[in-house]
Amino acid sequence: MNDRLTHLDAAGRARVVDVSAKPVTAREARAEGYVRCSPAVLDLIAEGGLPKGDALAVARVAGLQAAKRTPDLVPLAHPVAVHAVEVDIVPVSTPDLVGVHITAAVRTADRTGIEMEALTCVVVAGLTFVDMVKAVDKRTVLDGVRVTAKSGGRSGDWSVDDV
Amino acid sequence: MNDRLTHLDAAGRARVVDVSAKPVTAREARAEGYVRCSPAVLDLIAEGGLPKGDALAVARVAGLQAAKRTPDLVPLAHPVAVHAVEVDIVPVSTPDLVGVHITAAVRTADRTGIEMEALTCVVVAGLTFVDMVKAVDKRTVLDGVRVTAKSGGRSGDWSVDDV
Amino acid sequence: MNDRLTHLDAAGRARVVDVSAKPVTAREARAEGYVRCSPAVLDLIAEGGLPKGDALAVARVAGLQAAKRTPDLVPLAHPVAVHAVEVDIVPVSTPDLVGVHITAAVRTADRTGIEMEALTCVVVAGLTFVDMVKAVDKRTVLDGVRVTAKSGGRSGDWSVDDV
Amino acid sequence: MNDRLTHLDAAGRARVVDVSAKPVTAREARAEGYVRCSPAVLDLIAEGGLPKGDALAVARVAGLQAAKRTPDLVPLAHPVAVHAVEVDIVPVSTPDLVGVHITAAVRTADRTGIEMEALTCVVVAGLTFVDMVKAVDKRTVLDGVRVTAKSGGRSGDWSVDDV
Amino acid sequence: MNDRLTHLDAAGRARVVDVSAKPVTAREARAEGYVRCSPAVLDLIAEGGLPKGDALAVARVAGLQAAKRTPDLVPLAHPVAVHAVEVDIVPVSTPDLVGVHITAAVRTADRTGIEMEALTCVVVAGLTFVDMVKAVDKRTVLDGVRVTAKSGGRSGDWSVDDV
Amino acid sequence: MNDRLTHLDAAGRARVVDVSAKPVTAREARAEGYVRCSPAVLDLIAEGGLPKGDALAVARVAGLQAAKRTPDLVPLAHPVAVHAVEVDIVPVSTPDLVGVHITAAVRTADRTGIEMEALTCVVVAGLTFVDMVKAVDKRTVLDGVRVTAKSGGRSGDWSVDDV
Repeated sequence: MNDRLTHLDAAGRARVVDVSAKPVTAREARAEGYVRCSPAVLDLIAEGGLPKGDALAVARVAGLQAAKRTPDLVPLAHPVAVHAVEVDIVPVSTPDLVGVHITAAVRTADRTGIEMEALTCVVVAGLTFVDMVKAVDKRTVLDGVRVTAKSGGRSGDWSVDDV
Repeated sequence: MNDRLTHLDAAGRARVVDVSAKPVTAREARAEGYVRCSPAVLDLIAEGGLPKGDALAVARVAGLQAAKRTPDLVPLAHPVAVHAVEVDIVPVSTPDLVGVHITAAVRTADRTGIEMEALTCVVVAGLTFVDMVKAVDKRTVLDGVRVTAKSGGRSGDWSVDDV
Repeated sequence: MNDRLTHLDAAGRARVVDVSAKPVTAREARAEGYVRCSPAVLDLIAEGGLPKGDALAVARVAGLQAAKRTPDLVPLAHPVAVHAVEVDIVPVSTPDLVGVHITAAVRTADRTGIEMEALTCVVVAGLTFVDMVKAVDKRTVLDGVRVTAKSGGRSGDWSVDDV
Repeated sequence: MNDRLTHLDAAGRARVVDVSAKPVTAREARAEGYVRCSPAVLDLIAEGGLPKGDALAVARVAGLQAAKRTPDLVPLAHPVAVHAVEVDIVPVSTPDLVGVHITAAVRTADRTGIEMEALTCVVVAGLTFVDMVKAVDKRTVLDGVRVTAKSGGRSGDWSVDDV
Repeated sequence: MNDRLTHLDAAGRARVVDVSAKPVTAREARAEGYVRCSPAVLDLIAEGGLPKGDALAVARVAGLQAAKRTPDLVPLAHPVAVHAVEVDIVPVSTPDLVGVHITAAVRTADRTGIEMEALTCVVVAGLTFVDMVKAVDKRTVLDGVRVTAKSGGRSGDWSVDDV
Repeated sequence: MNDRLTHLDAAGRARVVDVSAKPVTAREARAEGYVRCSPAVLDLIAEGGLPKGDALAVARVAGLQAAKRTPDLVPLAHPVAVHAVEVDIVPVSTPDLVGVHITAAVRTADRTGIEMEALTCVVVAGLTFVDMVKAVDKRTVLDGVRVTAKSGGRSGDWSVDDV
């Protein structure tokens, strides 16, 4: 772990950190998040009369596209050659969560990591889901957005479950 | 509250809902969210040697810009004339939260609401903060992203605290 | 009908034509187009084992988003407040056409027409369909992209079927 | 030829297909299309008093730029390092076609093909031409947009003329 | 004239200033700038064998498009309904300037001024010109970029020539 | 030095020049520019009551982001893998200049140079500064924008100070 904020130079000015000398290696990052919503929303998604396919499909497409837009959104993120994006959105109804669980996996062969791409994918899929259900439920909450695993690169493999 | 997903037509196909006949009215939306991080991150932000101004300023600027990009990110969101955006990011260290609290307020005089703009502002400010501290803390979590209040428009004023 | 190319000034230089003095009126434009493809593609879309929902849903979402990006793509097009977008993609298998028929309708209350938004929606939905099936059929053709009707604005209602 | 839609996973969900393990090779794609228009439009382009240079130049520039925007428009397309784009727009007046013939060639050294970039270039050049002449001719039609040749990559060289 | 930086709130945080209560009025802004280049560049542009039309046309198109992208580039600028853009680039060879003189005029009917759109148009037209001639002249300089006049809005008409 | 405009083909048509056969090498470009403003602006930036951090930070962030957007703005510029961006904005008060001095350095390991990225960074940082102070000073001028040095690539190292 670093002991300083690498995106700022010695004088505290923001910068895009130099990665030009890092090798091109295969890298993967995984992220997840949740949108909490009312049971009524899940019912509407699940019931036959409702276009479940499209409802979740729009959010998935938004997530895929957003992964590619990451450096446009996050000022200090590098442009990365996004080589694969998968995103899934699964309705969940348990004592802990009524809502959807969003997971994303992003892969590249490039000079820097792609955790931000995975997070951006999750977050924009989540925002899109919120947008689509907000006429039915104003009280949705996007929660628990985090990187769950990464591999490749100098710092080696890492999982949120590592102790 | 609506009992159907308005972004889908009768056959379940996604669409951008027609708002052309709605009047132009003053509207405001507020949203909030949190990034949980390690105490070490807060120390680095707080301590004299570190560029506190820039660290939070970059995330704020990213949030302001993202509010204007909302219809590019959220497929079914309307282009809205964003007339004001304010975003704030405050370090918090309490028993419940070690991290930053992000709040956004967005205003417009247009035909449809701007909750999505407020949420997008919060979320991208949060992602940018995560990006800037990830070399120090890989385990940040973006949490509690929700609309807190809206005013203007046909449906009247609303706050998350309303019973 | 005009007898000159309005997007060029007297000296032949491209410009974005001044519409600031035109009134805000309700306007609609409709457009259509086709993608010709092999029967095998239609079979894959239709058969139970294949994700028909997503295949067409992705193209529809791409079309909706592209309608909003029109002024970014077409240099002399005005930014327009896109207030409604509908797009549909229907598999067709007749002696004249094996492929999909794409239709779009776009509405606004603004100072200038939105034919280009309707066309852009059709075209990008078509490109996205081509992208999704190109591993199966390299010989797809995008055909017959045209405005089919417009209403509102100074020039009055018009349909491609008018004599 | 593949017998499945590669942009969808086994469960039918859209994804950006993984190309990170494919080698970087030189690749080229060519595409073409037509805009049918009235003879009056061709006369205006051709006659001395009219700014022919700019009229076609704007459409060409739009095409060049659009080639670079492909992954922003086509949701499942990969970001590709576009290394060369050429586009031409030639007025044609024959028994078969009164209008313009648009051709594009795009080259890269990257991990995946660039047919979509060539098609996007043609299509946006065509849309821009339609936009510039629509005050004179409302009945333009964009036709025959297809890939004509590709080279490089695992699947080898291919031309639309191959039997 | 204001005596404070309006884009910052009382605590010094950047914000997009609220203009939602300002009336929609017709507004215009004009800007100019120069690119100094070698006489050899002007000769190449002027001589018959060279594509003068395209050389300057590309820069003009880039300027027109950039005017519409202003709020994407300038973080605190409002989205504005750009209703007209004109840009011109004129070769100049005098004792004071060997190069091109770029002028832009932008008009809108909206709630806030469009000086930034006029400046962005000039600047990106200039950058594009620099890009196109940099293989011939590495020492170009973009100079004298300023607003020359504005009209409309609460603050009334203004010209750089006013004393 | 070249004796022709490489961005135009033999017939004078604009194109994105083919760089696919050029090797990937480490490259750097530096650029600079100035914004002239009133002493009152510098006082506001300098004085304790004013949020100096944010004022310059917003302009820096805008510059960093713009460097990544260069191929979107400059039609014939290649997409480049921007691997590092640094930008600084320093208030200056001398007999020659009252204003700010902007410098940028951009690095990549790619197939073509990044002078345009460095210039775009300077120019958009400058525009953003102009935007932030325009309520206080309408007469700002962006001046002296030029490449100051480049290294890497076939043409070797170069500095504006070379004779």
